[in-house]
Amino acid sequence: MPNEAIVGIDPGLTHTGYGIVTFDGNRFTVLDFGVITTSPAKTTPERLLEIERQLGGIIERHRPREAGVESLFFARNAKTALPVAEARGVILLCLASRNVACFDYTPLEIKQAVIGRGRAEKRQVQQMVRMILGLPRVPEPDHAADALAAAVCHLHYSHRRRMLEGERRVQQPER
Amino acid sequence: MPNEAIVGIDPGLTHTGYGIVTFDGNRFTVLDFGVITTSPAKTTPERLLEIERQLGGIIERHRPREAGVESLFFARNAKTALPVAEARGVILLCLASRNVACFDYTPLEIKQAVIGRGRAEKRQVQQMVRMILGLPRVPEPDHAADALAAAVCHLHYSHRRRMLEGERRVQQPER
Repeated sequence: MPNEAIVGIDPGLTHTGYGIVTFDGNRFTVLDFGVITTSPAKTTPERLLEIERQLGGIIERHRPREAGVESLFFARNAKTALPVAEARGVILLCLASRNVACFDYTPLEIKQAVIGRGRAEKRQVQQMVRMILGLPRVPEPDHAADALAAAVCHLHYSHRRRMLEGERRVQQPER
Repeated sequence: MPNEAIVGIDPGLTHTGYGIVTFDGNRFTVLDFGVITTSPAKTTPERLLEIERQLGGIIERHRPREAGVESLFFARNAKTALPVAEARGVILLCLASRNVACFDYTPLEIKQAVIGRGRAEKRQVQQMVRMILGLPRVPEPDHAADALAAAVCHLHYSHRRRMLEGERRVQQPER
């Protein structure tokens, strides 16, 4: 279904990037992007409540049907990964409770979908996101750009899935 | 404040143990314990919704004022820790949104509070939980016993905190 909004999310306890994008089969339109920030001076439960409240408002405003959510790399630093995972759990709950279907993508899948290979520099990915989305400049801050990259990635994969399903339908017509 | 219910929680995506306990300054009373189980056949967002729904019901039934929530050990297996952390985020949100104050305890703190030292066997901890709570047998399954241990741990530390605050008040009377 073209022109339905989808949301890309780069989860974090301190900074959660989000980007709302539509794709009509031909052209991307960015409806909104930004970062939900919570203060380290607050307790974790207070910060999780804040993420839920803010993201909930964004979801209710744009009513996306699907979400591309970046998944975690735990290899690098497990200690910092846990608070991010706690925030990610709240984000998935927030989306699911508002009937947004969630799709996970690893950082590598997102890079590959945006730039065609996995080993690109962060800056190259951001520039490509800017070009794909037709934005005048690279979206800031980084977390918002990463969220838009997750949105582009989800649209890439879901578009491909639909095309494959279409091909399958052509090859195996209903009786 | 004596006799107020507190909840202990052992978080997990597949199994979340919970135990509701009161302490009147002298005697523990177990009001409820059990395990919230979600099916690995469901998606993570569906499972997180299920945890929120079930735990929310338990909280609304018993109205605990505080929670002792086991925190994660990430050293052992970071890959399995991430789904647990996602569930833990949802659990903290579920508690905080219902005005339950959350307190984190490491597995080591829980063992030490229950048995007086950190290196006890799991079975010893469970036996001690059974004795402290005056239960006829070791609570089952394990996740429920671990949740009750977290509840005992929180009551231990919060009782000590209150005594220390009482002493401080005695030493530094208000002017």
